[in-house]
Amino acid sequence: MHTLSEYISLVEKRIREINYPDEPSGLYAPVKYVLDGGGKRIRPVLTLATCEALGANPETAINQAVGIEMFHNFTLLHDDVMDHADMRRGRPTVHIKWDERSAILSGDAMLTMSSLMMGDGTDPGNYRKIMDVFQQTAMKIYEGQQYDMDFENRRDVSVDDYINMIRLKTAVLLGCACALGGIMAGADFRDCDAMYAYGERLGLAFQLRDDLLDTYGDPIVFGKEIGGDILNDKKTWLSITALAEDESGVMADELTRPSEPNEKIERVRALYDRLGLPLRCQQLIDSYVDAAVSILDNVSMSPAAKNFFIHLAEESRSRSH
Amino acid sequence: MHTLSEYISLVEKRIREINYPDEPSGLYAPVKYVLDGGGKRIRPVLTLATCEALGANPETAINQAVGIEMFHNFTLLHDDVMDHADMRRGRPTVHIKWDERSAILSGDAMLTMSSLMMGDGTDPGNYRKIMDVFQQTAMKIYEGQQYDMDFENRRDVSVDDYINMIRLKTAVLLGCACALGGIMAGADFRDCDAMYAYGERLGLAFQLRDDLLDTYGDPIVFGKEIGGDILNDKKTWLSITALAEDESGVMADELTRPSEPNEKIERVRALYDRLGLPLRCQQLIDSYVDAAVSILDNVSMSPAAKNFFIHLAEESRSRSH
Repeated sequence: MHTLSEYISLVEKRIREINYPDEPSGLYAPVKYVLDGGGKRIRPVLTLATCEALGANPETAINQAVGIEMFHNFTLLHDDVMDHADMRRGRPTVHIKWDERSAILSGDAMLTMSSLMMGDGTDPGNYRKIMDVFQQTAMKIYEGQQYDMDFENRRDVSVDDYINMIRLKTAVLLGCACALGGIMAGADFRDCDAMYAYGERLGLAFQLRDDLLDTYGDPIVFGKEIGGDILNDKKTWLSITALAEDESGVMADELTRPSEPNEKIERVRALYDRLGLPLRCQQLIDSYVDAAVSILDNVSMSPAAKNFFIHLAEESRSRSH
Repeated sequence: MHTLSEYISLVEKRIREINYPDEPSGLYAPVKYVLDGGGKRIRPVLTLATCEALGANPETAINQAVGIEMFHNFTLLHDDVMDHADMRRGRPTVHIKWDERSAILSGDAMLTMSSLMMGDGTDPGNYRKIMDVFQQTAMKIYEGQQYDMDFENRRDVSVDDYINMIRLKTAVLLGCACALGGIMAGADFRDCDAMYAYGERLGLAFQLRDDLLDTYGDPIVFGKEIGGDILNDKKTWLSITALAEDESGVMADELTRPSEPNEKIERVRALYDRLGLPLRCQQLIDSYVDAAVSILDNVSMSPAAKNFFIHLAEESRSRSH
C-alpha cells in the first residue's frame, strides 16, 4: 500500500494534467479554478486505496478517482450558488468571481466531465458497472441535498430523518468512491459492496464529526468560525436531539427569537452540555467508525491495506480539522 | 415507417410512464412539470425515426429518445434560470413556480436521469457508443451556451462565429438524437455518422428559421411576440450581417441608444429589408435543408424512410411556427 500523502500526490498530479480546451474560457476557467482549490481529496484517495487493496495498481483507477473529485466539486459549486455562499476554501466562490450564470453552466459541464472521466481506462465489462454505481449515487446525492433544503422549513425532523439525509447527501459518495476503486481492480462484487458500506459508514462518522466541530471545535484548528450551524438554526444531530429532549423550552425559544450571535451560541451550547450531547454525539460517531472497521474483516485484503482503512476510520473518530 | 404523430404518441406515452420516486417531491415534481410541458418533441422523434429507418423497431430506442428529450429540457430549465426567464411554453418557469434552488437542483437531477435513461435497453456493445456520443454532444452544448453568453458583450461576432455557436448550442443535439437511434438499431457507424450530419444541418436550418420568425413571423401563428431578438440586441445572423454591411450606421446606432420598443423594431426591420436580409437568410436556410436532404442519399434506407426525413427537412425550410 502507498501512504495517504502518496495517494494525494497521485490525485493532484492527475488534476494538474487535465487537458481543458482553450475556448470558451468562460466555461473551463471556473472548472479549473474549483478543482485547483484544494480540499482533503478524501474521495479520490478512497478510490485509489481500494483499488490497490483489492489487488491492482492504484493508478488503474486514477481517472475514476479524479472523476469522483470532479463530481464532488460540482456539487459544492452548485450548492454555493443555491446557498449564496461567497467564500469556499478561503477564496471567492465562482458566482462571486465570475457570475451566477457561469457557476451554473460550469457546474453542468463538471457533471458531464466527471461522467466522461468515469469511462477513461475502462473496458466494456466494467464500464457499465462504473457508470451504474456512479449515476445511482449521484441521484442519491441530489435527494440528500433536497432533504437538507426541505429541513430548513420543518420543525418535525427526527434523528432518523437527519441520519438518512447525511447518508444521502454525504456518505454514499464516499461509499461510491470505494466501490469504483474495487470495480477498476476487477474485484469480486461482494468486496466492492463491502467497501461501499465501509465508505458510507466512514462518511456518516465524518459528517457527524463535522457537525460536532462546528459547535465545539477550535476555530484556529478547524479553519472556520465556530457556531455557524447554531446561528443558522441548522438541523443537525445536536439541534434535533436538543429540541426533542429539552423540557425547559430553551431550544424551541432560540429557534424563534432573534438574539445577539455570541449569546445565542453560548446559550445553545450550554443546553447541549446540560443534555450531555457532545459525549453522546461522539458515541454515535464511534459506533459508525466501529461499524466501518468491522466491515473490513469481511474483505480479503492484506494486513497493510486493512491498516490503511482502519487508520482512516480512526482519524475521522477524533479529527479536529 | 410510422408517421410523425405516431412517433410523438410513443414519446408522450413513455414520458407519462416515467416512474418518479415519491420523495423528495421537491426534487422530482419540477422534473415532471418540465417534461410534461410539451414542446415539439422533434429530438425524440428523430431518434425513433432513425432507429426505424436503419432497420429496427422504433421502440428499441424509446429510452434514448426520451433521454434526449429529458436532456433538452434540462438545458431549457437551467437556461431559464441563467436568463431570468419567467415563462416557458405558456407556463411559469420552475424558478418562478418553485424557487431558484429547486430549478438548479432539479436540472442537475434531470441531467443524471437523462444519462441513466441512455443506458436502458442497451447491451455492453452499444452502451459505450451511446454514452460517448451523448456526453460529447452535451459538452458541445455547454460550449455553445457559453459562446451565446459571451456574444452579448462582444461587438466583433462574425457570421462564422454565430453559425458555430448555434451549431454547438442547438444543432448537434439533433445530430446526436439521430445517431442514438442509429446506434440502437445496430446500424453501421457510417450510417450513424451520416444521420448525425443530417440532424446537425436540420438543426442549423431550424435555428436560422427560428431567428427569421422572431423578426418576421406572425405572432399568432408563431406563438410569441415578434421582435424580441431586436429589442434584446441579440446576436443573430440578421443583426450580425446588418451591423457588418450597414454603411448608414443605423444598426450601430440602435445598439447604443435607448428607444421606444415598437419604433426600434420598425427601424431595424426596415434596415434588414433594405439590405435584403430576409431573402438571404432564407437562402442560407435552404442551403442547410438541401445539404441535409442530400446526405440521405448516402444512407441505406427505404424510400418511405427517406421521404420521412426529406419531409421533416422541407418543413423546417418553410415552417411558420
